[in-house]
Amino acid sequence: MKRDIMKIMEEKNIDALVVSMDEIQNPIWEYVTNCEPLTHGHLVWKRGEEPVLIHASMERDQAAAVGYPTQPLSEFDLREITDSESDPLQVAIKMRKRILERCGVAGKVAFYGTGDVSRTYHVMKAIDGRNGITIAEDFSPSVFDLARITKDEDEAEAVRQSGVPVYAALQNVVDFCKALRREGETLKTADGAVPTIGDLKTIIRTTLQDAGYQEDRGHSIVSQGRDAGVPHNIGNPADPLLPGKTIIIDIFPAPMSGGYYFDVTRTFVIGDADAEVRKLYDDVKDSLDLCIGMLKVGTPTRDLQVGVCKFFEGRGHPTVGSDPKAESGYIHSLGHGVGLQVHERPYFGDSAANKDVVEPGHVVTIEPGLYYPEKSMGIRLEEIIYIRPDGTPEILSTFPLDMVIPCQEG
Amino acid sequence: MKRDIMKIMEEKNIDALVVSMDEIQNPIWEYVTNCEPLTHGHLVWKRGEEPVLIHASMERDQAAAVGYPTQPLSEFDLREITDSESDPLQVAIKMRKRILERCGVAGKVAFYGTGDVSRTYHVMKAIDGRNGITIAEDFSPSVFDLARITKDEDEAEAVRQSGVPVYAALQNVVDFCKALRREGETLKTADGAVPTIGDLKTIIRTTLQDAGYQEDRGHSIVSQGRDAGVPHNIGNPADPLLPGKTIIIDIFPAPMSGGYYFDVTRTFVIGDADAEVRKLYDDVKDSLDLCIGMLKVGTPTRDLQVGVCKFFEGRGHPTVGSDPKAESGYIHSLGHGVGLQVHERPYFGDSAANKDVVEPGHVVTIEPGLYYPEKSMGIRLEEIIYIRPDGTPEILSTFPLDMVIPCQEG
Repeated sequence: MKRDIMKIMEEKNIDALVVSMDEIQNPIWEYVTNCEPLTHGHLVWKRGEEPVLIHASMERDQAAAVGYPTQPLSEFDLREITDSESDPLQVAIKMRKRILERCGVAGKVAFYGTGDVSRTYHVMKAIDGRNGITIAEDFSPSVFDLARITKDEDEAEAVRQSGVPVYAALQNVVDFCKALRREGETLKTADGAVPTIGDLKTIIRTTLQDAGYQEDRGHSIVSQGRDAGVPHNIGNPADPLLPGKTIIIDIFPAPMSGGYYFDVTRTFVIGDADAEVRKLYDDVKDSLDLCIGMLKVGTPTRDLQVGVCKFFEGRGHPTVGSDPKAESGYIHSLGHGVGLQVHERPYFGDSAANKDVVEPGHVVTIEPGLYYPEKSMGIRLEEIIYIRPDGTPEILSTFPLDMVIPCQEG
Repeated sequence: MKRDIMKIMEEKNIDALVVSMDEIQNPIWEYVTNCEPLTHGHLVWKRGEEPVLIHASMERDQAAAVGYPTQPLSEFDLREITDSESDPLQVAIKMRKRILERCGVAGKVAFYGTGDVSRTYHVMKAIDGRNGITIAEDFSPSVFDLARITKDEDEAEAVRQSGVPVYAALQNVVDFCKALRREGETLKTADGAVPTIGDLKTIIRTTLQDAGYQEDRGHSIVSQGRDAGVPHNIGNPADPLLPGKTIIIDIFPAPMSGGYYFDVTRTFVIGDADAEVRKLYDDVKDSLDLCIGMLKVGTPTRDLQVGVCKFFEGRGHPTVGSDPKAESGYIHSLGHGVGLQVHERPYFGDSAANKDVVEPGHVVTIEPGLYYPEKSMGIRLEEIIYIRPDGTPEILSTFPLDMVIPCQEG
């Protein structure tokens, strides 16, 4: 949790943390600045001291709102550097060194934030091992991985709040589908139009927007039939909605001004589902119940992935557990943490490096799915669960799991 | 331009480019994948060959839509690594090396994309100088800086299109303000409510959303009086709109699903402006005309910043030109390029390293402003200009520059 950062620094024997921001999406920066709208800056946090927020003068109001001591970039006399140095790489290096030096940063220092790979590498290389600074190999789990993996109650509440417009969106989708009329193999709206995937996308988007939320990169997944059989296919807005086909709806928005994500998936069938689809649904629903039951404090997350593969194979489905190249059956990992990123630790991958165990404070998804693109069907059910301080799992995604939405008969 | 990438690689003697994506906002990835919704992957582009897009299996539909040869990550047998290696840093390094090796990448190689500083540095350090790979010091201007700085006609058109909802938003703001009624020092809506900064923010947001656009990080700037005197203050939604105060409106959205930004600023005063505000407006408007007149092919962008500082000082305003710590007067740089990022090259900073000159294909803003927070006023006018292939500047932001919005008199 955020309050543990100093303790983690001490355990890792890191002398200072530096988090930098340069306009690009930057979850660690959001984490340390409470999502205040700052586009540039550095947070310099020396062990045993309060962090200092270095900011652009034109953003002094937002900087003050964060609540740490602040210092404008203009006090670092960077103009001396930009007036005289004509090599852009040297400018970047000298500016960075000037800030570190004036802040008295030395020893084992860890750097964070989002940056372009090329720029980052050349600037960091010039800093590492000079002026008394050694760059800490703070890698997975880093200080911020360890802090962010467990949420305090305010963060859990922020996730819960992000669920409110998601439920509203799902309810609006269900209401829209219930009002459709089936005519043989087609569906019609009350005024005779052919309903589309795009209609559902619009319902979801506008419901979220009206509540001040936006979809990650502008997308939710609304995929039908064959497309539902390819997990990250986002669906084709032009496709007509069809009765009897599985429709996967995966919604993962965050507040427009930044903040905590929500992530939930339901699969619907309009009209009625045939026996093959019902069997697939039952297998996924049973696996979901099984995995939620395994969310006990201390259980390695890896065990859940192994468990769900075993379960699905027992029901006759191919899985990535036995064939990493599988494109049918169960073909992804079981879930992930949710916070300032839609996908963050803990992960559920079955890999030797995954040492995450279920802990109080985790907010995770459990999202088993079965995919058969060649049979034009795919089903995924995703719940989001907060492991409360006492270890009890709280399912935050209270929307019903029912698949079939009965519609009007023509 | 995009079509020049191979030529630039040759000029820089770079043997291969690798652009990587790992969920975080990634403008270079958007550039090379035409904004297809891919959340993970690598584009490997060897000199003299077609680029190859390496993608997650579950994103094979989007990958195919990009139009390059594709290869799923599952073909790289990364499972061998994740099954046996338990150190996360070694996993990251070995996976990266496996991909480079199987793709036959060697020589002077440049890496791009967005990543966490700490992860990037340690992985790149382990690659540099081994297995026949030397990381190219491709820094500012990098291959992609050079390509992206000039837009082809499709890109310019994409920027133009992003302006359409911005004009609609500005027009809706003006219409809202025109309908207000002034009662002494307050304003009222037709139904007697007190209009707020938040009302204007909502008008802007919903107009953009209805057209499928979203504001960068959920914000436009709508700042009044003292807040307008601090350039990046985004404004307080709760503040009532006041007659006679300067209101800066700076809108910079992009399509929700990714793509090209627009960026324009107007300053309005509801009711009437006093002589001091009118004088300030005239100084900013005159500087805008002056600077747009300086946008001639071959002119160093730095000269425009020097020119506008000189102009403002001649009119009696302090500037960052003579005092880098100034917080009143003209206190930022004159403009910037606009593309897949709201701020990109060319820049207009007066620095020794800024060697950008005006070129055909640039899409730039020119945005002089004057800020006096202690007098509760600030004015900024921002135009966005495309330098056509023949060198003619085309002002893309056709919305009128008028400041005063007359309202109803109580």
